[in-house]
Formats: sequence, C-alpha cells, structure tokens
Amino acid sequence: MPEFFNVLPPQQALAALLKVLPPPSIALEEVPAQDSLGRVTATDLVSQQDLPTFPRSTVDGYSLRAADSFGATEGLPACFSVVGEVPMGRAPAIAVSLGEAAGTYTGGMLASGADAVIMVEHTQQIDADTIEVVRPVAPGENVVQPGEDVRTGDSILPRGHLLRPQDVGGLAALGITSLPVARRPRVAVLSMGDEVVSPENEPAVGQIRDVNSYTIASQILRGGAEPVPLGIVPDNYEDQLEVARRGLENSDALVFSAGSSVSARDMTADIINALGKPGVLVHGLSIHPGKPAIVGMVDQKPVFGLPGNPVSAMIVFDLLVHPILYHLAGCTTLPEPARTAARLDRDVASVPGREDYLPVRLKRGDLDGSEELVAEPVFGKSNLIFTLIRADGLVQVPLDKAGLYAGETVVVRLFQ
Amino acid sequence: MPEFFNVLPPQQALAALLKVLPPPSIALEEVPAQDSLGRVTATDLVSQQDLPTFPRSTVDGYSLRAADSFGATEGLPACFSVVGEVPMGRAPAIAVSLGEAAGTYTGGMLASGADAVIMVEHTQQIDADTIEVVRPVAPGENVVQPGEDVRTGDSILPRGHLLRPQDVGGLAALGITSLPVARRPRVAVLSMGDEVVSPENEPAVGQIRDVNSYTIASQILRGGAEPVPLGIVPDNYEDQLEVARRGLENSDALVFSAGSSVSARDMTADIINALGKPGVLVHGLSIHPGKPAIVGMVDQKPVFGLPGNPVSAMIVFDLLVHPILYHLAGCTTLPEPARTAARLDRDVASVPGREDYLPVRLKRGDLDGSEELVAEPVFGKSNLIFTLIRADGLVQVPLDKAGLYAGETVVVRLFQ
Repeated sequence: MPEFFNVLPPQQALAALLKVLPPPSIALEEVPAQDSLGRVTATDLVSQQDLPTFPRSTVDGYSLRAADSFGATEGLPACFSVVGEVPMGRAPAIAVSLGEAAGTYTGGMLASGADAVIMVEHTQQIDADTIEVVRPVAPGENVVQPGEDVRTGDSILPRGHLLRPQDVGGLAALGITSLPVARRPRVAVLSMGDEVVSPENEPAVGQIRDVNSYTIASQILRGGAEPVPLGIVPDNYEDQLEVARRGLENSDALVFSAGSSVSARDMTADIINALGKPGVLVHGLSIHPGKPAIVGMVDQKPVFGLPGNPVSAMIVFDLLVHPILYHLAGCTTLPEPARTAARLDRDVASVPGREDYLPVRLKRGDLDGSEELVAEPVFGKSNLIFTLIRADGLVQVPLDKAGLYAGETVVVRLFQ
Repeated sequence: MPEFFNVLPPQQALAALLKVLPPPSIALEEVPAQDSLGRVTATDLVSQQDLPTFPRSTVDGYSLRAADSFGATEGLPACFSVVGEVPMGRAPAIAVSLGEAAGTYTGGMLASGADAVIMVEHTQQIDADTIEVVRPVAPGENVVQPGEDVRTGDSILPRGHLLRPQDVGGLAALGITSLPVARRPRVAVLSMGDEVVSPENEPAVGQIRDVNSYTIASQILRGGAEPVPLGIVPDNYEDQLEVARRGLENSDALVFSAGSSVSARDMTADIINALGKPGVLVHGLSIHPGKPAIVGMVDQKPVFGLPGNPVSAMIVFDLLVHPILYHLAGCTTLPEPARTAARLDRDVASVPGREDYLPVRLKRGDLDGSEELVAEPVFGKSNLIFTLIRADGLVQVPLDKAGLYAGETVVVRLFQ
C-alpha cells in the first residue's frame, strides 16, 4: 500500500491546476435580466445611454436660479414667487426666471431655467404664492446631472462578473432586459465503492448509504454550477473508467466521490491517469482532514478525487473545487467566502506542517460575560457527517502553528 | 410637508416589528431531500436508526484483538497470522482469534472477533501470511462504533433549520429521501410613482425605469423567498391601496418600492394605515442612507415602505426585510451575513447619532506593502445605483462615532 507522493498545501494545489487549465471557454446563453441573479456575464456590457437622462432633484424643495439665492440668510432671507410645481414623470411645462421658484420633488425634474434646488427645510412659506429662502444654494446643488450615474460608452459590468441584486437593478435602469451569460458549468459526480448504496435503499450489513454525492451535488449548486450525477459504481476498474469517461465527455469537470481506503484512492488515481493527459497533478494535500485528495486534468478539464470521509470531502471541495467552478464560468474574481470573527472557548492542539480545519459551533458569548461570538469546537471523527451538521463553520489552524489558545480571536469560515 | 416621527435605529425597528408579529405559521410542503438545499425544516427530524449501523474501521490496516497487541514495540514486535481480508460492503465471512489479523479497509467492517484496527503504517509485512505489529492498539482504537455518529431517537435537525450541503448529506445518510419544509414565503412588491416605467420601455423626459423592484426581487430570492411583482402603479392613492390590498391577501409580506419624495412617503404611510391594524409601527430610521423607511404590520403580516433611492432601499432591505424573510419561514437562527475585515484607505467623516453605511470596493492591499484587503470608499449619491454596482460591500460607521481613520481595520459586510 504506497503512500502519497507530492503532498501540497491546498493553495499550491489550486495554483498547479490553474497553471495548466485553459482559459474558460464555456458556451454562453441569453437569459432574461430578471433571471440573471448569480449568473456570470459572458460579454463586457457597455452603457448605450446617459443615466440619469435629465437633471434630477435629490431633495424635496423648490427649483430656482442659484444666483437669486446668493446672500440669503436667516436674518435677511431672499423672497421668491412660487410659480407652480413640476409634476413627477413629465417634462416641466413651467419655467422660472428672476426671483421665481417651482415646487420640485425628490427624483423629479427641475423647472426650465432653474439650475439648483433649495431643500424645503431651508425655506419658509409666507403665503400660497411666496416663500423665503434662508440660505444660498450653489449652482447644481441638490441636483444629479445627466450621466452622473453612468455615461454612454461606460463599461457597466465586465465580462466574468458574478451578478448580484444591485447588478440586476442596474441592468433594469439601462433597459437591458436580457443578456448573455456563461452556461452553468456541468460537473459530473461519480460515487464509487462496493459498500455504497443509494439513500432510498436499506443498507445490508457492511453497506452504507451514499452521503458524499449528495453533499457534493449541493456544494456544486452553491457554486452556481449544475451537478450531473453518474450514480454509484462498485469497485471495478473497467466499469468506473467507462462511466467516468462518458461522464467527462458530457461535462465541464468531473468529481470522484471515492472510497477512502488507500486502495480506493489508488484506483481513482489510476482511472484519472487512464482517462487522458496529463492525468493526476497532485496526489495528497498537507491539510487535516482532507489529506487523501487528488487533483488532475484530463482533456483540458479539471478532475478531482475527493476523500471518502464526508468531512474531508466537504473541506477539499470548498478549498479546491469551489474556486474552479467559478473559473469554469469565466468569473474573474471569486466571491469572498463568508467569515466571521469569534473567540475560541478552549485550547486546541494541532500538528505543525499541515493546515488543520476544525469544525466549530458558534454561540453568543459567555466568555468574560461579553456578547461576542464564541467558537466551540465540535470534536468528531472526520468520517462522521454529523460532526459537520452540528457545526456552523470551520476554523483554520495555519501550517506553522502547533495550536490555538482559549480566548484567542479566530476567523471562522461559515457554512452556508 | 411633515418630517419623521419616531426615528429608530434599525435593530430597534426590527425588534418593534418582531414584538408584534405572530409566530411563523407558514404552510409546509414535502420536498425531495436532494432539492431541499436552502429550505427550512418544518418539523423536528429524529433519527430512526443508529449511524453507523456496524463498527467501521477509520484506517487501512488489520483488524485484530487489541489484547494480542499489548506490549508490542519496534524492538519487540508482536507477530500475527494474516487469515484473510474483510471485503468492503459485505458482512465478514472471516473471524480472528488469538494472534490472528485480517486485512481491513477504511470504512469497512472488522473481522468477527476483532475489537480494534492497527494502522498499516504500524505493521511490517514479514511474508504473505504474517505481519509484525510494532505498537499496541487499545480496544476500540481506529473504530467508529455503531451509533457514534447518530443514535436512534437523536434529534438530527430541529424545526426551523436552514438546510446546508452537509444537512442534505446527513438526510441521505439516514435514508430520508423527502421531508417537510416551510413553503417559501411569498413577498409582494409594489412599485409606485408617476415617473416610473418598466425596464423594457423607453422613458420619456422626466421618467425613469424601475430599478428597485428588480433589486428587491433579487434580494427576496437571496433570502429564500418568492417575489410576487405587483407591477408599477402611478401616484394615485385609491389605485395603490387597491393593488396593495390584493397583493397582501395573496402574500406573506408586502414591500412598497415607493417614490422618494416626502409626499410619496406620506402616501405610503397612509396606505399602510388604511390597509389595516396596527399599520405603521416605525416611520424613519436613524441610518444614512436609508432614513426614510417605514415598518408596519397589517393583518399579522409585515409591511415595509422602502426608500426610493436604490442605495437606501437595498441597505434597508438587508437590515430589516432579509431577517424577517427567515422569520416568516420559521427559521430559528439567522444565517450570519458574510463579512470580511479590511483596512480603510482614507479618513471618512460621519455624523454622530446615526449609523452610516459606506459602500466600499475591496482590493488586495497596497497599504504598508502588505497583502491584506484594503477598503476604498465608493463615493456617490445614494440615488445612483452604480454606486452599489461599483462596490463590493458596506462598512458600518457606528452610531456613536464621528468617522473612521485611514488605516483603521473595519468589518465589511459583503454584497453577495
């Protein structure tokens, strides 16, 4: 039973894969803008117009000629005749000249001839047709100018941008009702092992239900991609190779949810090497749990052998597969993982020379009677899925540390 | 034009609403476990079985009787006859007695009669049928016992739990192929304003396209709920009241995407009060931007009047509507918002007595030549949607602060 060859830290393993992976070449598809949340732009989007298209007031008040307000104070206010009101949503039929003002609403147009808006709070109503202005306004004050939000020809969203709620709003603002996005990457998942049965079956003695391909499929969905389940294939080299080959042909990436024994890992590595060149790139990571992971590339597509232990598989997916899903979709910047700071409630030992990932549960603090978040380690063997279910996130113990101290503030990577 | 009455910090506004809202009573629906990611459990789930169901090895090695290894050292190893191998996925046909061992794989069963597994690394192969064991193992060492992950009758997921990838895996592990979850809360969105037109239309002079109801619909999706668009209704009290009334009847909550003028805000408040009791609970928040927000309740359902400015609307949604969506679904603990620490690249002034939310862009650091994240404020009026599109998150300046200093480490709430 041979051991690992080139054990690497996860960041180096990721870099090794990214170095050989071709630039993303996934097909694009046109989607309605209102269905584009979470998708990745497939082209550079450029504004075809100025936004706003007309000068808009940012306050409720009166539009007027700024010069007419110069010198106005509480003690010596400037008097204006109110010549009407600019209705919302229509071009102003009203104009102001010397000493005249027109009622103007937030978001509305200014009266013709006006170049500023005085806030209603800085005026006093004298009678139905007259106001006093108690401070001066500068030209352009309380006005958004045409093109101040976006100008014609401005890049609004670059290619490779992951669309968020405000981006969907921005598309609406510019009248962009559909746009090209990257097709969701298709990720084939092959579950391997003589002992593995589908969840709807009652396992016989010695059998277990397939856990990892369900966790993995959910993680694929979370990464904006589409899981393609290849089912469970018993430990037969030829069968697994054949199913993997067909799966990879119809997908953009392949994940093996392998048995966790050394022999199962070796079989996975053999299959990856048999599928095509260059095959296995990294065999083993310097992390715990998650050491027995495999990273490879076949026919320009990424291939991963995840450890059989559910905890290990999930951590390796987060560290290696998740960023690659975004790469496949052409995403230029990865979303930052959700994190929170918390204080550790006890000492935790670790082995220097590897990154340890420690599942923790978060509680509102008892430490020092403060209200801050407290991280409480969830101890459990890495082959127990409920270790992760009882946890809210992971604390990383860096490579060079021999542990963490009680009371230390740690960064918790949140499960979501 | 009256100003605000009871301006509250957002946490107090949320508390005021939660105090009067009834306990969640949303209908449940049965979904397949593999489609349950992001849904909220509607019942307490209890395990009907022990997991694992049999003692499983956590390593590759040999199962044996622990007592036979006692006293073994590198210098004085214990000798064992290898009587065979336990196959994966089947009950062991093999038994070990005094001085016997059986090849055993990670995740596999132990041979009958064995009570521990010695790691292959702690053995030496002497010949095809003999190994030497160079250290003792304790009874139960390297073995997961039946029920060690979960026991029959254990609560596995409480009611009100938001399902994550590992939870979907845990359901698979226990053979739970479908489960009752809360129906997604339906949230009606009413866009108001004479000046607002639908994105597919070309706005005339003085008109703008509807931005907020698209941003809001996307935020509703992100909160695990279903947006129910009620369309754009011009500034006519009777029409808006009628559309709002019908919308609320068919939904679990109602959001007004109102015009941003004081008159529009007052109209929203009047409509909320006319819809039913108790009506408006909070009119105005002590935050910037986002002050002109309304929180109310009608017929036991939450109702929100969001400010017309896109930046304000989005911030108020995150602070107030987002948590309520989870409350409606029966979620007992809110997911922590995604945050990251970063260093501010310049001084930022703020007004004490209100919480300021400052959009920032994140960059890999130049400050001090370090590689940490740097937060660069995106200055822009709060009615410019592209202020948010150019930003990666928000920095909160607390109520009691007059600003933040350049170089200060701040917590950035990430847009996702």
